[in-house]
Amino acid sequence: MTDAPKIKALLFDVFGTVVDWRSGVARDVKAFLSRHALSIDALEFADAWRREYVPAMEEIRSGRRPFVRLDVLHRENLVKVLSSHGITSVPPEEVDELNLTWHQLDPWPDSVEGLARLKRRFMIAPLSNGNIRLMLDMAKRAGLPWDAILGAEVVRAYKPSPSAYTDTVDILGLDRAEVCMVAAHNGDLAAARGCGLKTAFIVRPTEHGPAQTSDLRAEQAWDFLATDLNDLATQLGCAN
Amino acid sequence: MTDAPKIKALLFDVFGTVVDWRSGVARDVKAFLSRHALSIDALEFADAWRREYVPAMEEIRSGRRPFVRLDVLHRENLVKVLSSHGITSVPPEEVDELNLTWHQLDPWPDSVEGLARLKRRFMIAPLSNGNIRLMLDMAKRAGLPWDAILGAEVVRAYKPSPSAYTDTVDILGLDRAEVCMVAAHNGDLAAARGCGLKTAFIVRPTEHGPAQTSDLRAEQAWDFLATDLNDLATQLGCAN
Repeated sequence: MTDAPKIKALLFDVFGTVVDWRSGVARDVKAFLSRHALSIDALEFADAWRREYVPAMEEIRSGRRPFVRLDVLHRENLVKVLSSHGITSVPPEEVDELNLTWHQLDPWPDSVEGLARLKRRFMIAPLSNGNIRLMLDMAKRAGLPWDAILGAEVVRAYKPSPSAYTDTVDILGLDRAEVCMVAAHNGDLAAARGCGLKTAFIVRPTEHGPAQTSDLRAEQAWDFLATDLNDLATQLGCAN
Repeated sequence: MTDAPKIKALLFDVFGTVVDWRSGVARDVKAFLSRHALSIDALEFADAWRREYVPAMEEIRSGRRPFVRLDVLHRENLVKVLSSHGITSVPPEEVDELNLTWHQLDPWPDSVEGLARLKRRFMIAPLSNGNIRLMLDMAKRAGLPWDAILGAEVVRAYKPSPSAYTDTVDILGLDRAEVCMVAAHNGDLAAARGCGLKTAFIVRPTEHGPAQTSDLRAEQAWDFLATDLNDLATQLGCAN
């Protein structure tokens, strides 16, 4: 068992770990499709939009494209998914508006309380691929009590690039072993561990819906394994 | 009178505007000097340390030196001021510790309440030359309720370089006229106005002690002129 008292900061993956992106995106997509009288399944549309996420970031991680913030990638991906559904006549302002759905996602039921408890003992910040304004809007709407907003836009690198983790730790002025990455994704934690950070796996078995097959269990012996953020707070000795 | 409803974000100078750096630094310097049985005036020492601030940043603003965070400049300046007082035998860890005084400054009496009120209606963030960890420690200790920590380290530019303002507005995804710079320093506001931001002057007549001669009044017709952050909140229509 890792020595919790040595950890000084917790960095959080956000999409899937802290907020339920699939339900939130589907909610706003459904309203959009309804306004346009389109009979497309909103959850399927949300999944299609999300499937473009990794390849779009890979263009930047590989160096083929200079860094742009996630809002830009999300919008390009949205135009692509709309087009693949034969929807090409939506006014740009309406595309902009639908793109803001990522700023307005709801937290999982335990997230706000769990983060508030963890904040009393640790520095807490997102280390998300989401850009600063996206994280700010989400936090303000949902009441996520971050101490600071860190992540891809601050360090100009997308996870799982090593510099996304190491440059964030450097900003915090801590040793890597004093920082714990918290995520519902084994790949994110593997990259963080590869950089020397501590790791906490949160099980989010319905991030991708009821038929989810990935990230249902820890694929390595992570330092902490928790059912939700309240459970993590308890394991790390944070009062209720 | 500027139209307050058009403003969406407030960016704050911090040292002098939100926190009382002189008293805070002198408090920790006094304890340090006392431990070393040195009869040096702590307020004079704080002033001497602060006088090194602008020239140290100017090396970076001018391009003569690559960007380093303010913690680094503060420490170099501390060693210089210690040395000018004939103090050269302090262990490095003790210099590090005294340097952290800038992370532990107390807010002016109105700051926490004023910011909490402003936060209900606007995005609020520091646009300080202080680095992220410094601002984070200060906020956590004092209860400053920032929505995000922006500033020099995020945009890798020190105020009053124009890019410190314009790149921060770009991160927020706003028009420049939708952002208001809040500061107790006419020079900071002049630079912000030069970039197209709105401006709010807060009078802090004892930032430099009772004999202060600078920034006692507005030197331009700033968009807002307030006696403190609570007054600004009232002027901007924020409930008590």
